[in-house]
Amino acid sequence: MPTLTINAIRKLLRGAPHDEAELEKLAAQVHTLPAGELSYLMRTTAPTESAVLFLVLDKNQALQVFKQLSPSYQAKLIDTLQTEQLTNIVTDLNPDERALLFGELPATVVKRLMQGLSEKEQQMTASLLGYPKDAIGRYMSPEVLAVPANLTVGEALDYICDRIDEPETIYVVPVVDDTRKLLGVVSLRGLLAAERGAPVTDTTHVPVSAQVTDNREDTARLFRSQKLLAMPIVDSEERLVGILTIDDVLSILDREDAEDAARTGGSEPLPQSYLSLPIMRVVRSRIVWLVVLAVSAILTVQVLDVFEDRLNEVVVLALFIPLLTGTGGNTGNQAATTVTRALAVGAVRVRDLPRIIWRELRVGAVLGVVLGALGLLIAGIVYGFDIGLVIGLTLLAICTMAACVGGVMPLIAKKVGADPAVFSNPFISTFCDATGLIIYFSIATTVLNLG
Amino acid sequence: MPTLTINAIRKLLRGAPHDEAELEKLAAQVHTLPAGELSYLMRTTAPTESAVLFLVLDKNQALQVFKQLSPSYQAKLIDTLQTEQLTNIVTDLNPDERALLFGELPATVVKRLMQGLSEKEQQMTASLLGYPKDAIGRYMSPEVLAVPANLTVGEALDYICDRIDEPETIYVVPVVDDTRKLLGVVSLRGLLAAERGAPVTDTTHVPVSAQVTDNREDTARLFRSQKLLAMPIVDSEERLVGILTIDDVLSILDREDAEDAARTGGSEPLPQSYLSLPIMRVVRSRIVWLVVLAVSAILTVQVLDVFEDRLNEVVVLALFIPLLTGTGGNTGNQAATTVTRALAVGAVRVRDLPRIIWRELRVGAVLGVVLGALGLLIAGIVYGFDIGLVIGLTLLAICTMAACVGGVMPLIAKKVGADPAVFSNPFISTFCDATGLIIYFSIATTVLNLG
Repeated sequence: MPTLTINAIRKLLRGAPHDEAELEKLAAQVHTLPAGELSYLMRTTAPTESAVLFLVLDKNQALQVFKQLSPSYQAKLIDTLQTEQLTNIVTDLNPDERALLFGELPATVVKRLMQGLSEKEQQMTASLLGYPKDAIGRYMSPEVLAVPANLTVGEALDYICDRIDEPETIYVVPVVDDTRKLLGVVSLRGLLAAERGAPVTDTTHVPVSAQVTDNREDTARLFRSQKLLAMPIVDSEERLVGILTIDDVLSILDREDAEDAARTGGSEPLPQSYLSLPIMRVVRSRIVWLVVLAVSAILTVQVLDVFEDRLNEVVVLALFIPLLTGTGGNTGNQAATTVTRALAVGAVRVRDLPRIIWRELRVGAVLGVVLGALGLLIAGIVYGFDIGLVIGLTLLAICTMAACVGGVMPLIAKKVGADPAVFSNPFISTFCDATGLIIYFSIATTVLNLG
Repeated sequence: MPTLTINAIRKLLRGAPHDEAELEKLAAQVHTLPAGELSYLMRTTAPTESAVLFLVLDKNQALQVFKQLSPSYQAKLIDTLQTEQLTNIVTDLNPDERALLFGELPATVVKRLMQGLSEKEQQMTASLLGYPKDAIGRYMSPEVLAVPANLTVGEALDYICDRIDEPETIYVVPVVDDTRKLLGVVSLRGLLAAERGAPVTDTTHVPVSAQVTDNREDTARLFRSQKLLAMPIVDSEERLVGILTIDDVLSILDREDAEDAARTGGSEPLPQSYLSLPIMRVVRSRIVWLVVLAVSAILTVQVLDVFEDRLNEVVVLALFIPLLTGTGGNTGNQAATTVTRALAVGAVRVRDLPRIIWRELRVGAVLGVVLGALGLLIAGIVYGFDIGLVIGLTLLAICTMAACVGGVMPLIAKKVGADPAVFSNPFISTFCDATGLIIYFSIATTVLNLG
């Protein structure tokens, strides 16, 4: 039963130090685990505890498991357990995986690990590390198979088969001239379907490519929108320097999605999986935003302070505060989520701002009419018509305002070059809270003849 | 300048009916647009308006554009413009794309379109439509190339080259026996690297496969976690019936992500892109949740109603209501977002519930101590020590409670078989609002000796 086994292993791992007999027991249990369970075990255990696992995994298993971890987790493992086993794993990584890991390690450790690599591997890794952290160059594979443009289809196929072990992919093959300038791309399928005697340039098509220094997310989105399997990467002189494969692209997009999801919820993304992190690291990902939001919320205290006399006069007004601010926040969040998503998938651009305001104005008004009517009815029955009218009108105004604010904020963020998710749901809620209270007490003052 | 062009085209499209001269002008403008701009144009225009475009696009362009639209958008286009051009496009779709489109069309239209297909295409489409809507069978390609197990590597390569035009992929090739039972999978790369004379079964490896009736999301996640390019799909007797490629998987996951994002923001997912939908359709995606949340928020009115006497006594307590409920909501959202994400990527399971409660209890307490200290200080200075103490203690209690609630709710949803995102951020906020108010007034009553 895997349930028992995972828990048993976790317990074993926690009880360091370990003697020989215990390690053997651990090894026996680990070898019965399916790959998916092993990966789940790692993601729910701190790196300091799971390090022991790498003593008992066989070489191949250790490499597979290691590859599935985030670079930050990998770095902590290496920090915890500086064994030959782990050094060997680093040697067996692809150059792009290694560059991402090295980006997380202190310079002294990188230097030590570099010495274990062959000269060619050292060179490739160093060149990848030379690109900025968010450049696509960090993610590409420098081991790219390209065929010279002067070959025939048959020669090209033989050329590929002779070098089949090295490159990361052989299904998309760049075609280059003598100076390694990228001329085109040919798919292996295209080559196999063509006449062997025809020149390879006949089946070549114009490549969708990117430059090494291009932004990783933009390049990944371009790759996805074109439904590619691989994309050649060139330097500033159009010379082929690497190839980006779909798994690189998907891991970039996964990371961006995780970042967006975290920001939308008002926290910073975690560097590794939730259950494997120390408590204080989780706190750190949340505290800054929470304090910023709490301090912004002091605005709501000040707004209410201004209206304290009205509250003293009609204390029943206080009862509706959470309902009204809550509804405003919800309406704003709905609009913000829709527009943020549409921006991410390219179905909306910044210049659509006027159309979006006009849409959200109408959507918000319709929502406000429905909720306002409900509010008028319910509050009117329980607290009298006057209060009902105040609540109804306030809901109408708040919904219209919040839908517009929620729709516009992601566009403003994008316009000023920030992540659209940075005006997160909590931020929009806080903004709508303060504005909504001003609307509420203004309407109440007029309708109830206060002040 | 594309900015001008897109707007000019949109204006042209809106002014139906169109005469011959106008259509020619439209055609001239459309042909200068890059593919990305054309796709953006479609996604920001209602199907009733963009239909005219299909009169002027050339056949190939029309097919490419059509393929990028959501099935719901495609269906509305066909409904608007029943021309031969569109009928031809339907004929040119892959069987899996066609099945998704037909799922959105009325039966009579499906029947008419079916008659335009060849007998083989009719058969394939009908068989895909026979699977339930969320089964992976709907998304696979029935045009799968499999090699018989008794061939040599060389024979298998020739076999593939002879049939290279039909299948959706040739890079992952299932190996079958005479009864079409799936025995294994071989990559084209593996075949090219092997000796031509060796039996094909020597390079075959055990396939990761799924059954036609398996759930689409589970299958897509399995596919992704194994980093596959294609996956054979079998029937209940292990016979090969189709192949799932990475673009099918990514479109399934994109749709699930869009659904999660929408639910997290408290609305239902939109069937097509935001700007192409009628206003009332956008309202419909939001109104249900908004009303549900507003009605739940009546709970907060009732809680406050109970404490109205205390509010009358110390009206200054009302000033902090939005700040306290807001902070509770934010803390809950942070935890919920983290756990929902961890559940989606498999880094947390339902049985981790005790560990998550224990984590969030500690994280929430640390956050609460920091915010509580801030609250004690600021509120203490402005409104006196007593009020400061109430606010500080309440923040500590609310943060601890909200972090636990936010962390636990997604697990409860998962446990009862619902989408973890169904307890959306707005829902958690509303729940924390009501609970937070009870905590607030209980603490105030004790500290201030009220009631």
